[in-house]
Amino acid sequence: MAKYPQLNSVFQALADPTRRAVLGRLGEGPASISELAKPFDITLPSFMKHIHLLEESGWIQTRKEGRVRTCVIEKKSFAVVEAWLSEQRDIWEGRTDRLEHFVTTTHEKEQEQ
Amino acid sequence: MAKYPQLNSVFQALADPTRRAVLGRLGEGPASISELAKPFDITLPSFMKHIHLLEESGWIQTRKEGRVRTCVIEKKSFAVVEAWLSEQRDIWEGRTDRLEHFVTTTHEKEQEQ
Repeated sequence: MAKYPQLNSVFQALADPTRRAVLGRLGEGPASISELAKPFDITLPSFMKHIHLLEESGWIQTRKEGRVRTCVIEKKSFAVVEAWLSEQRDIWEGRTDRLEHFVTTTHEKEQEQ
Repeated sequence: MAKYPQLNSVFQALADPTRRAVLGRLGEGPASISELAKPFDITLPSFMKHIHLLEESGWIQTRKEGRVRTCVIEKKSFAVVEAWLSEQRDIWEGRTDRLEHFVTTTHEKEQEQ
C-alpha cells in the first residue's frame, strides 16, 4: 500500500470500458480529444471526465497546442500494474517453495525411518 | 469489452488496499474470514463487503464448513488481467512494427534514389 500509493486510482481507471478503449487507442499513438471521443455515444463533458480520470491516475498525459488537446499514453502505469502482478506471483511461488520444502523434508524423514 | 465482460469488476476489486491485501494474504494459502479480517481496523460488516466484492468479481471463492467460512484465491482472475495487459502490449508492438516498417521502407526508398 505504501509501496504503490497510486494503485487505487490506477486500477480504478481500468474499471471502465470507455477508459480501457481510450488506452487501447492511445497504444497506437497520440490522438486529439475529438478523435478519441468519436467512437463513443456520450456527451463531450462525460467523455472529458474519463480523460481527466485517466490523466489524474497517471495513465495519460495531455498537452494543448492551439485549440487542440492531444493525449499520449503513459506506459509506466502498465509497469505499476505489472509490478503488482509480479509481487503476487512471488507470494504464490514462495508458497509453492514452502510446500515443496515440506514435501521434500517429509519424504526424506520417511526414508530415514 | 465483449471479450472480457468481467474486466470492470475485476479491476474495481483491485482499486482498494484492503482487498489487495486480502488477495496477497490468500496467495499464501486459504484462510478463514476471521483470520483475514484480523489485520484490519474495520468492523466485520465492512470487511464482509470487501469479501463479497472479491467473491462477486471472481477473485476468490468461499466455502462454509460448520461455522467457519474459508476463502481461497482464484488465480484465473490474474490471468484475465494479464491477458488485458498482453493485449495492450500487442497494440504497442503493432505500432512499433508499423513504425519500423515505415523507417525501413523510407530508408530503402532513400537508398534507391
